[in-house]
Amino acid sequence: MANPLTPDVVVDPVELTRALVDIESVSRDEKVIADCVEDVLRSAGHLTVGRVGNTVMGRTELGREQRVVLAGHLDTVPINDNWPSTVVDDLIYGCGASDMKAGVAIALHLAATLPDPAYDITYLFYEAEEIESEFNGLNLVSASHPEWLDADFAVLLEPTYGVVEAGCQGSLRVKVLTHGRRAHTARAWRGVNAIHAAGEVLRRLEDYRPRTVTIDGCTYREGLNAVRIAGGVAGNVVPDECAVEVNLRFAPDRSEEQALDHLKTVFEGYDLVVIDSSAGALPGLRAAPAREFLTAVGVEPAAKLGWTDVARFAKLGIPALNYGPGDPALAHAPDEHVEIGQIRDGAATLHRWLAS
Amino acid sequence: MANPLTPDVVVDPVELTRALVDIESVSRDEKVIADCVEDVLRSAGHLTVGRVGNTVMGRTELGREQRVVLAGHLDTVPINDNWPSTVVDDLIYGCGASDMKAGVAIALHLAATLPDPAYDITYLFYEAEEIESEFNGLNLVSASHPEWLDADFAVLLEPTYGVVEAGCQGSLRVKVLTHGRRAHTARAWRGVNAIHAAGEVLRRLEDYRPRTVTIDGCTYREGLNAVRIAGGVAGNVVPDECAVEVNLRFAPDRSEEQALDHLKTVFEGYDLVVIDSSAGALPGLRAAPAREFLTAVGVEPAAKLGWTDVARFAKLGIPALNYGPGDPALAHAPDEHVEIGQIRDGAATLHRWLAS
Repeated sequence: MANPLTPDVVVDPVELTRALVDIESVSRDEKVIADCVEDVLRSAGHLTVGRVGNTVMGRTELGREQRVVLAGHLDTVPINDNWPSTVVDDLIYGCGASDMKAGVAIALHLAATLPDPAYDITYLFYEAEEIESEFNGLNLVSASHPEWLDADFAVLLEPTYGVVEAGCQGSLRVKVLTHGRRAHTARAWRGVNAIHAAGEVLRRLEDYRPRTVTIDGCTYREGLNAVRIAGGVAGNVVPDECAVEVNLRFAPDRSEEQALDHLKTVFEGYDLVVIDSSAGALPGLRAAPAREFLTAVGVEPAAKLGWTDVARFAKLGIPALNYGPGDPALAHAPDEHVEIGQIRDGAATLHRWLAS
Repeated sequence: MANPLTPDVVVDPVELTRALVDIESVSRDEKVIADCVEDVLRSAGHLTVGRVGNTVMGRTELGREQRVVLAGHLDTVPINDNWPSTVVDDLIYGCGASDMKAGVAIALHLAATLPDPAYDITYLFYEAEEIESEFNGLNLVSASHPEWLDADFAVLLEPTYGVVEAGCQGSLRVKVLTHGRRAHTARAWRGVNAIHAAGEVLRRLEDYRPRTVTIDGCTYREGLNAVRIAGGVAGNVVPDECAVEVNLRFAPDRSEEQALDHLKTVFEGYDLVVIDSSAGALPGLRAAPAREFLTAVGVEPAAKLGWTDVARFAKLGIPALNYGPGDPALAHAPDEHVEIGQIRDGAATLHRWLAS
């Protein structure tokens, strides 16, 4: 197949977005798009290129004082009667248009057209963001080639509708267990009902007042919710165990350990079993390249409440944020689309920051 | 096979118990034992005999003013390394020894040896009590031959350790539902958590004070318990539904309808879905044969808290109670056994009542 990402296409981030959408790349099927992207990077004489699986890296090696990463994932969720792309007025429709072929297009366009940036830049185009973490290209590279991620600051071009979303909240899931003693319900007084005992756990959840925390101008809103409850032995048995699964979303000023300590305090007197835990990421907006980025973009940063790959950089000590065209609410939707104006604005903004 | 229930055996309720234990009769496999019992009944010239499936009926037709039923089930739970019978000191061990070959032996012994009782007597030996109601011989006969159950009073010879257990409690199971609105837990404030809402349901259960009711000298102790709880969509979703399954055990002064009305009051404001409902049975100890039975037995009646086949008679307007040898706590246990003394006492007591 001839590479559809010709120099004529790459020079225009809007055309490039359409061309990228039109290369099918559902998770685990990213070879073709990775080949095309690698080809573009190798054609740019100012970049050193590497590849692991279907994750492709290109970087400048200009000896600048600081290095930034621009990253985007190449995969999409399964096609949902929304491929190939179509254009209606100012909108490009198609699977992955918003999440995140438009962001990838901006990064790839800059990679090809910015031979002499103000910082050294590492461009990362990675596989399998939409599925289990074990396949995630950024995750794999952080283990096999951590030097590819080494930088002073990173921008993930996930769709944020042109807003800067900084850091992300952590997530901790635990089971809160209550215990009792089984008995036949005809002689219930011989037993102790573990489901009734869970009433106090639910009461503490109802009474819980979550924090709102502002860090580097970003406001994080925490939350603590029961997400599952299960208990019971049989229809005529006083149950001896009940489990309430709760999910704490915590602001990035708490570590995972501190978040767990917090739940131990909230549910004092109960057994807790940790199900899973993900650290949050501080917005990290005080680093020089981040401050200059914010100046160039000219918008106030907002907190990212969900968990994103930004946290993988945070874990390596690299401040990172999300900034990209497209409405995140349309990600994974059948009518996914991206505004052409946002693609042009995003490319121009990043060019202004990086070329300065 | 020669019938092991020979006249020499039938004349002695203890020997008869052993012989009945030694005829295997796990539920759905009662043909052999029903054949043997039918043969004994047909040999007694004073009885009219009928059979439906593996349920056998024999009755006197002496024109007495009142009729009583003596009933017992022929089936046992599966054998559990406890067959055939063994005798150790004063105890007969074996599957079904207590539940309820000993009771069946007493009834069959009386059927064969009491040609001229004070009441007309209907002896009922029925199949499939230990399994689903649809197979229960008493249930089947109440539909196909309700006249077999027609009587002024009934004694089921279930093991009660020689105690009179009168009536039985009803049982009502309902789901109490709570509703909410789904949201991502990262933006929990956009949702309404249905599991948190179940806290109020559990609070009402905790606060519930069950009644203790005395009827005809029998004390019934009610109970209301959560027996199951389930809710949750996914680990990161505020759940929109939660179901608390509760079991009310109610004294027989409440009808099923009244029991449901009671739960509607307790859980006012919530949707209730009925799962199943069984009426209780009043002790019915005021009927003349019942009073004479109590005089003959000479013990105070106690309330039956669980549900038993007694309720099938109550549904037909026939007072019924449980009275039989053997410890009910040993029913279905591998070391199931019955005291020989209790078999002799039970047979002598019923003989005294019926022959008077």
